[in-house]
Amino acid sequence: MKSVYIVGVGMTRVGKHTHLSLRDLASEAVLKAIDDAGGEKPQAIVVGNMLSSLVEQENLAALIADHSGLRGISGFKTESACSSGGSALVAGYSLVASGLFDKVLVVGVEKLHERPTPDTTRGLAYAADADYELIYGISFAGLNALVMRYYMDRYGISREEMAWWPVMMHENGYYNPFAQLRKKITLDEVINSPVIADPIRLYDSCPLSDGAAAVMLTSEKFKSINDSPIKISGVGDAVDSPDLSSRFELDRLYASRLSAERAFKMAKKEAKQVDIAEIHDAYSIIAAITLEEIGFAEKGTAPKLWAEGRFRKGDRPVINPSGGLKSRGHPVGATGVYQAAEIAMQLRGDFPGMQVNGDIGLSQNVGGVGSNVITLIYTR
Amino acid sequence: MKSVYIVGVGMTRVGKHTHLSLRDLASEAVLKAIDDAGGEKPQAIVVGNMLSSLVEQENLAALIADHSGLRGISGFKTESACSSGGSALVAGYSLVASGLFDKVLVVGVEKLHERPTPDTTRGLAYAADADYELIYGISFAGLNALVMRYYMDRYGISREEMAWWPVMMHENGYYNPFAQLRKKITLDEVINSPVIADPIRLYDSCPLSDGAAAVMLTSEKFKSINDSPIKISGVGDAVDSPDLSSRFELDRLYASRLSAERAFKMAKKEAKQVDIAEIHDAYSIIAAITLEEIGFAEKGTAPKLWAEGRFRKGDRPVINPSGGLKSRGHPVGATGVYQAAEIAMQLRGDFPGMQVNGDIGLSQNVGGVGSNVITLIYTR
Repeated sequence: MKSVYIVGVGMTRVGKHTHLSLRDLASEAVLKAIDDAGGEKPQAIVVGNMLSSLVEQENLAALIADHSGLRGISGFKTESACSSGGSALVAGYSLVASGLFDKVLVVGVEKLHERPTPDTTRGLAYAADADYELIYGISFAGLNALVMRYYMDRYGISREEMAWWPVMMHENGYYNPFAQLRKKITLDEVINSPVIADPIRLYDSCPLSDGAAAVMLTSEKFKSINDSPIKISGVGDAVDSPDLSSRFELDRLYASRLSAERAFKMAKKEAKQVDIAEIHDAYSIIAAITLEEIGFAEKGTAPKLWAEGRFRKGDRPVINPSGGLKSRGHPVGATGVYQAAEIAMQLRGDFPGMQVNGDIGLSQNVGGVGSNVITLIYTR
Repeated sequence: MKSVYIVGVGMTRVGKHTHLSLRDLASEAVLKAIDDAGGEKPQAIVVGNMLSSLVEQENLAALIADHSGLRGISGFKTESACSSGGSALVAGYSLVASGLFDKVLVVGVEKLHERPTPDTTRGLAYAADADYELIYGISFAGLNALVMRYYMDRYGISREEMAWWPVMMHENGYYNPFAQLRKKITLDEVINSPVIADPIRLYDSCPLSDGAAAVMLTSEKFKSINDSPIKISGVGDAVDSPDLSSRFELDRLYASRLSAERAFKMAKKEAKQVDIAEIHDAYSIIAAITLEEIGFAEKGTAPKLWAEGRFRKGDRPVINPSGGLKSRGHPVGATGVYQAAEIAMQLRGDFPGMQVNGDIGLSQNVGGVGSNVITLIYTR
């Protein structure tokens, strides 16, 4: 298999961008990534997006390529709910690794503030099973709340222990100029924030976000475009049932474990070798379970570890120096690409927020309640 | 680059499937393709679909894998409007050619009869530019009507000449057990059918369709699963602007030409060598222009040629022995995969409809009004 490198990155600030359209956001990230890649233009574009249907727009690859001055290249959109950006990276990786193209631009974009919030909330639930879950009126937060309650009860996790996650994420994100929520918060603020879907409170949840991120992928031949090309050494992708009721155990995310195992196997690495990771904390409970599935914590211990101060700068691995979905934000189909851009910059040493030293990075992007998971391993 | 083969195909009949859900249709095609591939299970699934958002369901790769008994494999959805199935084939091709997987199942599925027709018509227009076209209320048929009027006027094409296309398609589709509209029609019926968007009449348009088709792709290592593996020798993919008003010429589809050129170059073949082709006649005008862009006719002549009896069985190339989108039907995100399955069966010699002898096949799948085009070349 041909090697694949990240040679350019571009991000918009995550936030509420009422003055920018979906194509504006995407093109800003695309043009920044092209610029970072020395002006080199891609031969193909892969767009990660979940919910442009809410603004009555599909056909995003053609739309964004055209708006970015790239008419005539190849391209398509990928979708796998909240891991649509991760899927775009898998597709982009394979387009380069196959030899079909030498230069592929992967862009993730989402615009959730175009519609009234109830419509967006309903749209996000398209990640669930429409026939067996959505029809009963459950929201995506409601599904995660079921998992959180079960997990806390089974492993004896306290409300305080869970609450240290958002506190830590806001500490990290405070330094990230691309983050949506740049403010430090206290344990009391988390615990006393409004209930979204009991036991999930406002500060256990990521915000609704608009944003776009892009990375330029190239083959060996073009990696010298950038002084510090970052190699994608491992790719792991796994699906589980979208329907929670048909899972074997509510507190496990098998697709997270499978995808991490596959990525580690391909990269010939282990969890303990990872220096920096960006994981998918759409809710604190998902952070807990995926840290365990990836192999960064024993089952049922992740919240105890982070309450003790683990995973912060100075520890190994450092988790979510970007601030994660909680503070950087979660522009759904863009999130996986933000993670890739952030890890690439960390390994290059030019991340403008909390910079961590390291040689091996990992990102894990989760779609649905673990129904799609993509793990990538990065090396300098 | 590793070689990629089609070693299994599966299709549902195209039609109005009120009693089957999207996942039912998809799984029927998936299981048939696995069966045709000797029971061999895929390691990954790529789903082509455009409009499942209309039934409030995304996350289709996980959903369909789970419903087909394939939980734990890898996968994602691709979307590029009406060429979403073609994009799924490009993605599936690269997943195998890269060496990431040896066995990838590509399934296209669409269910357009879940919602009232005006909603579906509006949904199909998500392929257009929401900000610059859809906002003015234009439908997808309306956009194609602009092109048809301009083309007929510029090249002096008569109403009768245009009308021979649907007559020919219904003759072919009559023999296809998977076709939606299995009835022969006359020139008078076409010319006197109701106006949809002048000059497009009912019989110049493909029907609204439900359906699913699947192909199993493998590397060289697994091609012997099938006695007659069909090689995908060329892949070409190109995007143009979704917005018609920013095209250079209304009667040209540059992405069609570019994608065909790329596929021919990769396969080291020329248009004149093609024995059988399935092209994208969503409207007769798109058949005319794409026949010219691929290189099967000189500019402005395609309707004259087909009115003279060209492209039928016995000629070379034979176009759309399946009946094309006009008669087989156009289950949007599935259409590109139907084309691949049909060409593979033609080259294998076991297509259950109008069987054509040949060694070299081509399919071309068009998204939007030529904003995304995927061309594939197939060899025995």
